[in-house]
Amino acid sequence: MTEHIIDPSIIEADNAAREADLRVDYDSLGERLDRRGIAIDAIKKKVAQFSVAVPSWGVGTGGTRFARFPGKGEPRDIFDKIEDCAVIAQLTQATKTVSLHIPWDKADPNRLKQAASRFNLGFDAMNSNTFSDAKGQLQSYKFGSLSASDAATRNQAIEHNLECIEIGKTIGSKALTVWIGDGSNFPGQVNFATQFEHYLDAMKSIYAALPDDWRVYTEHKMYEPAFYSTVVQDWGTNYLIAKELGEKAYCLVDLGHHAPNVNIEMIVSRLAQFGKLGGFHFNDSKYGDDDLDAGSIDPFRLFLVFNELVDAESRDADFHPAHMLDQSHNVTDPIESLMLSAADVQRAYAQALLVDREALKAAQEGNDALAATLELRRAFRTDVEPILAQARLDQGGAIDPLAVYRAAGYRAKVAEIRPEVAAGSSGIV
Amino acid sequence: MTEHIIDPSIIEADNAAREADLRVDYDSLGERLDRRGIAIDAIKKKVAQFSVAVPSWGVGTGGTRFARFPGKGEPRDIFDKIEDCAVIAQLTQATKTVSLHIPWDKADPNRLKQAASRFNLGFDAMNSNTFSDAKGQLQSYKFGSLSASDAATRNQAIEHNLECIEIGKTIGSKALTVWIGDGSNFPGQVNFATQFEHYLDAMKSIYAALPDDWRVYTEHKMYEPAFYSTVVQDWGTNYLIAKELGEKAYCLVDLGHHAPNVNIEMIVSRLAQFGKLGGFHFNDSKYGDDDLDAGSIDPFRLFLVFNELVDAESRDADFHPAHMLDQSHNVTDPIESLMLSAADVQRAYAQALLVDREALKAAQEGNDALAATLELRRAFRTDVEPILAQARLDQGGAIDPLAVYRAAGYRAKVAEIRPEVAAGSSGIV
Amino acid sequence: MTEHIIDPSIIEADNAAREADLRVDYDSLGERLDRRGIAIDAIKKKVAQFSVAVPSWGVGTGGTRFARFPGKGEPRDIFDKIEDCAVIAQLTQATKTVSLHIPWDKADPNRLKQAASRFNLGFDAMNSNTFSDAKGQLQSYKFGSLSASDAATRNQAIEHNLECIEIGKTIGSKALTVWIGDGSNFPGQVNFATQFEHYLDAMKSIYAALPDDWRVYTEHKMYEPAFYSTVVQDWGTNYLIAKELGEKAYCLVDLGHHAPNVNIEMIVSRLAQFGKLGGFHFNDSKYGDDDLDAGSIDPFRLFLVFNELVDAESRDADFHPAHMLDQSHNVTDPIESLMLSAADVQRAYAQALLVDREALKAAQEGNDALAATLELRRAFRTDVEPILAQARLDQGGAIDPLAVYRAAGYRAKVAEIRPEVAAGSSGIV
Amino acid sequence: MTEHIIDPSIIEADNAAREADLRVDYDSLGERLDRRGIAIDAIKKKVAQFSVAVPSWGVGTGGTRFARFPGKGEPRDIFDKIEDCAVIAQLTQATKTVSLHIPWDKADPNRLKQAASRFNLGFDAMNSNTFSDAKGQLQSYKFGSLSASDAATRNQAIEHNLECIEIGKTIGSKALTVWIGDGSNFPGQVNFATQFEHYLDAMKSIYAALPDDWRVYTEHKMYEPAFYSTVVQDWGTNYLIAKELGEKAYCLVDLGHHAPNVNIEMIVSRLAQFGKLGGFHFNDSKYGDDDLDAGSIDPFRLFLVFNELVDAESRDADFHPAHMLDQSHNVTDPIESLMLSAADVQRAYAQALLVDREALKAAQEGNDALAATLELRRAFRTDVEPILAQARLDQGGAIDPLAVYRAAGYRAKVAEIRPEVAAGSSGIV
Repeated sequence: MTEHIIDPSIIEADNAAREADLRVDYDSLGERLDRRGIAIDAIKKKVAQFSVAVPSWGVGTGGTRFARFPGKGEPRDIFDKIEDCAVIAQLTQATKTVSLHIPWDKADPNRLKQAASRFNLGFDAMNSNTFSDAKGQLQSYKFGSLSASDAATRNQAIEHNLECIEIGKTIGSKALTVWIGDGSNFPGQVNFATQFEHYLDAMKSIYAALPDDWRVYTEHKMYEPAFYSTVVQDWGTNYLIAKELGEKAYCLVDLGHHAPNVNIEMIVSRLAQFGKLGGFHFNDSKYGDDDLDAGSIDPFRLFLVFNELVDAESRDADFHPAHMLDQSHNVTDPIESLMLSAADVQRAYAQALLVDREALKAAQEGNDALAATLELRRAFRTDVEPILAQARLDQGGAIDPLAVYRAAGYRAKVAEIRPEVAAGSSGIV
Repeated sequence: MTEHIIDPSIIEADNAAREADLRVDYDSLGERLDRRGIAIDAIKKKVAQFSVAVPSWGVGTGGTRFARFPGKGEPRDIFDKIEDCAVIAQLTQATKTVSLHIPWDKADPNRLKQAASRFNLGFDAMNSNTFSDAKGQLQSYKFGSLSASDAATRNQAIEHNLECIEIGKTIGSKALTVWIGDGSNFPGQVNFATQFEHYLDAMKSIYAALPDDWRVYTEHKMYEPAFYSTVVQDWGTNYLIAKELGEKAYCLVDLGHHAPNVNIEMIVSRLAQFGKLGGFHFNDSKYGDDDLDAGSIDPFRLFLVFNELVDAESRDADFHPAHMLDQSHNVTDPIESLMLSAADVQRAYAQALLVDREALKAAQEGNDALAATLELRRAFRTDVEPILAQARLDQGGAIDPLAVYRAAGYRAKVAEIRPEVAAGSSGIV
Repeated sequence: MTEHIIDPSIIEADNAAREADLRVDYDSLGERLDRRGIAIDAIKKKVAQFSVAVPSWGVGTGGTRFARFPGKGEPRDIFDKIEDCAVIAQLTQATKTVSLHIPWDKADPNRLKQAASRFNLGFDAMNSNTFSDAKGQLQSYKFGSLSASDAATRNQAIEHNLECIEIGKTIGSKALTVWIGDGSNFPGQVNFATQFEHYLDAMKSIYAALPDDWRVYTEHKMYEPAFYSTVVQDWGTNYLIAKELGEKAYCLVDLGHHAPNVNIEMIVSRLAQFGKLGGFHFNDSKYGDDDLDAGSIDPFRLFLVFNELVDAESRDADFHPAHMLDQSHNVTDPIESLMLSAADVQRAYAQALLVDREALKAAQEGNDALAATLELRRAFRTDVEPILAQARLDQGGAIDPLAVYRAAGYRAKVAEIRPEVAAGSSGIV
Repeated sequence: MTEHIIDPSIIEADNAAREADLRVDYDSLGERLDRRGIAIDAIKKKVAQFSVAVPSWGVGTGGTRFARFPGKGEPRDIFDKIEDCAVIAQLTQATKTVSLHIPWDKADPNRLKQAASRFNLGFDAMNSNTFSDAKGQLQSYKFGSLSASDAATRNQAIEHNLECIEIGKTIGSKALTVWIGDGSNFPGQVNFATQFEHYLDAMKSIYAALPDDWRVYTEHKMYEPAFYSTVVQDWGTNYLIAKELGEKAYCLVDLGHHAPNVNIEMIVSRLAQFGKLGGFHFNDSKYGDDDLDAGSIDPFRLFLVFNELVDAESRDADFHPAHMLDQSHNVTDPIESLMLSAADVQRAYAQALLVDREALKAAQEGNDALAATLELRRAFRTDVEPILAQARLDQGGAIDPLAVYRAAGYRAKVAEIRPEVAAGSSGIV
């Protein structure tokens, strides 16, 4: 039986106070959607089935190179983190898996498995880390990891990824996500072609160790931590990698990893069309890889991404990209942000489901640009909160997860157990 | 025998006044290069062999959607344009071919061939135009051409490209460049996947008509004239196209067609490494597709592109991308800008040839980032003007093309023949 | 009595078919807002009072430097344009004024006044044009206008602005908007300080002629048509200008005239705080000055701008910026786009009015970042379409302006009178 | 007498091996400049007088939020840092002052003064730090410092700045530089106007404590560490601040703190023209605030900035902005990078001095855009290394500082004394 961290009676009490209004709003929305030929319950069902993974590192307070300002009750280790993730899952019913980062989350795999199964949580993709040096590591990644000029360094990075696969096998993960920071800070520091050859060779060794029912996701990013060039800098290079590796290799799209002004939803479409869209790291950004909360800066863009996903689903029944949040919570309680972001990702999905694809297609074929875009706008403007809330309620979650979370006093409680962490002046500027 | 538009005696007189200083500077530079183990004459020889094509449309004054301010003596037709190109070739000895744009340059192909051969000019790639409507055209390209939802429109665009190939066969061109403005201005206006399928199907029809010894270059561009999405938006999509079409298909890189901050030299490297770099449209830009003179805004970037080209040459003896200028001259005499830009492209090539690739490789392998970047900087900082000037002089060109051009009074002379063109308020805002 | 171009019976018939549903939706929304302590009728009243000006040039099909693809029934002159604007005003009841562009709209001022008053339309700001050369103009603006190095050119540009003021006085305008394209295409082409001195001197001459009850709006833009530097490049320079000129001088913000990633709503706040926010040119953009329909690309950003305006209103009762649409309609019927954009601007205003400013302030003061942003999100997510529709209905407009416009067949009717315009290959690339 | 850390005999030996070639190159360059009417010795004199400050924190290895990879022999404290700075000064003779960061460099002011005077080093501007929390600090800067909503936090930040002024008085500094990270990560998190009022009030308190012969420099930055809004986001806001504060307040320009594509040299011109340009933080960037070595990515931009400075000097004899390097050295030996960057800043200055300002002005006034830009290009293309080297040699520095530094084995020596620092996985993602 699933353990509950938040006392269900708190949820029930809060829900009870909100349920009547929700019923009115759900019915009213249902009637409006009915006029548009949409059955609200069918949308709710799809929303309820949708889950987005929570990254273990997301429940700790994030920071920048300038400073980190920890909150109260910071998780001490992966087991604390799993408990925080369980709270998110319990209240939102939208985050059924956790994604681990090795070596940060390294622990006895069987213990990891047990800790998660207490809360009926599964494990999403494994994340390797060769962008920083772990204690005791023989070779430094200062000048690169999988693409380093030094063979011993590359081999160490390969071995680390193989270890991630091994841990993942035990805990029931089915995918490995590889993001590296390799690149260069000066024109001429690396030879682009040689560096990419090193990378491809190393990835082939990792790919060779991938179980048959696994996928490997490679993730591109324009810049940071490398500031002149990055080896997997964009979806073009990412696509080349997935093609070179084979059919278990897919591209992962982080919404904050692109050049300014780039049309991300179009990249989503291209990768889906050519069978190489593996999944997402959801977050939002205004400037660079800001890792802000999903949908907090440009909610229409998030909707347009989901519009492509629903379109791709309609073309390919076997289309099932992986969804994960990947955010840095610097000024909010991470649990609060993750709960709301999970809902915002669901929201974009629900809105995309409202698009009348036949009407859209007719407008597109008739070059009626205005009617086409109005079809999208109408879906986006629909306030689907009642659908999300009802889906949560149906599954035992909270109509208003934030209100329940605050009422339950979870953060204050863990702060009594978990020791205060000193604010960090990283000293890196 | 090659006809000369500028009286050779004017060139000789100007050269005579500059030759002694040039000799001193060339020798002094030769001595400094000799210390670095570089033979100046070998560099000069390579520079002399380098040629960049001039686009026929480049010799007319350009403009923006706000206005066009023509200069004096604007060319009236392709035959005037060929004469202007001949002046550039004569003075710089760096632009041995002209690139035509159909239907703008449509004329009896045999007459075109004769007009060019008078000046010993060849023809570079043919450029089709389906981004604007020609008079009398049945279908409009308002909603797209090769990727339009309407089949008749797509077929018309295919036919136009086939016609370009036919003209090109007669005049001795060996390539077709396809740039289209197709895209959309509103989210939802087009279905990205459907639109791209239309595009690929259309391009396959064109590819099928390509002679065996031809290449087709497809050109990507982030935006403009479409402002929400563009069908061939970046090198990733461009690469997909070249792979889908076949071995005669290559990607063309215009330096101004990328997102802000993008590392263009890295794209050059990737395309070269995967055998799909077809060539360049050289220009410079600060904001978008500004089409400013090559090297006028960021000369170091132009050098870094050539650094990749010289690196690619060293890996593949058969590597021979096409080079063309593609600029919009809004406030200068186009002939002057094109002469200087041709020299600036040669300059970047010459500087890239100065890089000690063995020393660079050693620094890269040793992770000596500073030594590696210094090797590039040293090459870039070298003032190679004496090499360029000597190469021009050796071939009958001008030591100082601008001075000779102004002294010869060419613009004033053609302004007597060619009627004044009224300034245009395009009325398009 | 106001003349009506669209037969009111068509509006009535369409409204009749929609009114019952609107009533249900308005009441349902009213109930939900009531729970949040908001009176829906008070919001509706403010929306009904809100008007955005339509630019005369906006009713013609726009284009790019590559091409213009005119639609059917293009307006032939300012009198056709006024009729098109009257249709927009009639159906939306949201656009009570028209903004003229001289010399494009030059005509007998009294005739202009009569033409507009037929439809009860007023005139918004006058717009001068020194970014293109008018026929017969003595000096060319190729190298600048108000900031040109040549004094005769500057004087001509000043005279043109004085003429705009004179016309405006007759027709009842109360403001002059000055946007110029002056800048440079090459480093060194102009001396920044000298050019700005010329500009300030010229503007002072114009300012001196401004009637006491007028305002002058200067408009900044990052780039285009100048591609290396622009004399009024950003709000910093624009603010300097307004300070130098005096208390009748204000800054105008066009949403598409900023650098990538810039936080525009913050600029709005700064200018409002320092008393120099004059007004807006509304449109949307993804890349540069794309001039797409307001709210079509990033509706949340438009909302955030209005959030600042409502905040500024609450600080300063005398705050009354000018609102104008400024869009280029390249692939839609301009009347349709302008009707929808007027509604989308109203929508953002209505949503901003829903923000609970006391709750927002409390969250801000308590550093509860999540509660603060949720307050904005909740307002933005509210589908206020019933409020907009009811406001239109109350004033004699259409519940669904687009449906009525299409049903009325206006475009087909004027296409019978107004001759077809040939598609333009601008020939400017 | 000035102490020397690097044994002068090592410098002399290396110089001796290079002096003959330098003599040839200096004379040859002198002859070429002489033809252009330029006296090489006058340029050398100005270069020799030019100094750029070294930031104390620059001599430690930098990092990103992902990781920091320390080098060998990292300085342990400010006294080690001063020694590293002394090496840079000794070899380059171009960095006569050090800039301190409090509390990082906090120590007995008299000891600081003595430590620096041993090497004849002075102190440049004091830098306060309210972007991270120091140990034992009562109020956290998590939600802002000088602009925080909490008054006690603002007061603490003010007090810290007053302390910086006090320390600076003792050690002979004459300026305070204030950069803060205050801003917000979510729309609505702060009220822009209120936040700016708090900031201005706090800065007024600091300004009031500024000695009469001091300057205060405020520094703008577009984003990071705040990712939705930043209180001092651009030069427009920075100018407002300097005007509000008074005549001792000036704007500081960091080259990496602007929006993509922004014309920085124009901002330099505007601030200089309006008397508010205080100085620079030199570095280079490709994406954001990358803090790469000055001139390493876009050397022409650095030149264009100095072109404005030389122009401003010619207008205002009293113009004397402060120059400081501000870079993050993640993959190089910081001392090596700083030595080369100091030279690259001098290089840009030397090249800007070569511009024939009369010829430039004539071309500008005649609208000869090409001649104007050629005048700048000619200056930029001139390889002025012999001038820099000779200026170093004349003052007792090294012709080739990098070669001497490596030959002297300084890093290895200090690595014996200074303990190894563990690589940091910041754990902040």
